[in-house]
Amino acid sequence: MKIYNEHITIQSQKPPEVFNLTAQAKAAVEKSGFRDGIILVSSLHSNSAVIFNDNEPGLLEDLDTWLVQIAPIRDDFKHKDCFESNAAIHFQSLLLNHQAIVAFTEAHLDLGPWQSVLFVELDGLRPKRILVKVMGE
Amino acid sequence: MKIYNEHITIQSQKPPEVFNLTAQAKAAVEKSGFRDGIILVSSLHSNSAVIFNDNEPGLLEDLDTWLVQIAPIRDDFKHKDCFESNAAIHFQSLLLNHQAIVAFTEAHLDLGPWQSVLFVELDGLRPKRILVKVMGE
Amino acid sequence: MKIYNEHITIQSQKPPEVFNLTAQAKAAVEKSGFRDGIILVSSLHSNSAVIFNDNEPGLLEDLDTWLVQIAPIRDDFKHKDCFESNAAIHFQSLLLNHQAIVAFTEAHLDLGPWQSVLFVELDGLRPKRILVKVMGE
Repeated sequence: MKIYNEHITIQSQKPPEVFNLTAQAKAAVEKSGFRDGIILVSSLHSNSAVIFNDNEPGLLEDLDTWLVQIAPIRDDFKHKDCFESNAAIHFQSLLLNHQAIVAFTEAHLDLGPWQSVLFVELDGLRPKRILVKVMGE
Repeated sequence: MKIYNEHITIQSQKPPEVFNLTAQAKAAVEKSGFRDGIILVSSLHSNSAVIFNDNEPGLLEDLDTWLVQIAPIRDDFKHKDCFESNAAIHFQSLLLNHQAIVAFTEAHLDLGPWQSVLFVELDGLRPKRILVKVMGE
Repeated sequence: MKIYNEHITIQSQKPPEVFNLTAQAKAAVEKSGFRDGIILVSSLHSNSAVIFNDNEPGLLEDLDTWLVQIAPIRDDFKHKDCFESNAAIHFQSLLLNHQAIVAFTEAHLDLGPWQSVLFVELDGLRPKRILVKVMGE
């Protein structure tokens, strides 16, 4: 197995904000030179997520509506009042998962027709780092 | 590292419907000939999920009850009114996750006594594809 | 690719209870002797979870509050009344995910400054087993 590593840094302008990483995943496979394998795409932060889904603006608005309803910010949470320390946002991140695996075969990403690799910034306004680890042959 | 790829196609009769993929995961390890490694089992659709859980009919009924309560179909969602375009179903899929990794050692799946590999079709009545990527030695 | 396998066994005293596995993940990389790769950390039980998050006591209390609210124990669930058979706890586990992947590069874990690898025991008082599969070079 060969391994190729890189990091993506993303600066959100107005969270929640969704960034499509599919092109960067494709580019990482090309840079690796591998034909078959997997890419681990993993956020290094607890208030963001990496998901596969339809990159449709209406759906992403609905997602925000649902997350705020299912894990609302609460005054009685203990983890709060610090910079980017809001328990509810952590729970939204846990619900969506902070990492996903993108498979590739014959140098093409194994994604369904409606699947994009999406980074969901839920909270912050500072630069966020995402690990992209390509493992293959 | 060696890699063996296949796809499973599943046709739901009445969603939500749960399919036990454990036997297919075992068969994929046998076909690969690998003794140690991992299998990525990843749905190519955003309205289904791959989970590990107890394949007990009562539990799976309860799961449906819970999903509908936690992510109900809403008239005010923007992503709707298209074929298989229902935001709530996407959120149920995100909550459960569309992929899981099945490890194997000495050609046996590393599953707990109550863990089955389950494909959960949440929405559709058309054939759904699942990637099975076996990586190992 | 080389593979190194081990299991961690954890005995909860009072569920829900959270155990920080970060040191054990580091130790597994050292024992493997690999410099670059991934560790699959996967619970062999359906009433526990493996997450990455901030190991802050207030946050973990809030997490328990939120889980009980979002997936409460219900008398009308069918999966109940058996030893450790409580549907709601399974759903809390599904929501958090029973597995996570810890990447490492140059023999150091690729974790963000606030990310710990946490095992969340949601239900049981018997020993629980976690697979730790290190794959790398």
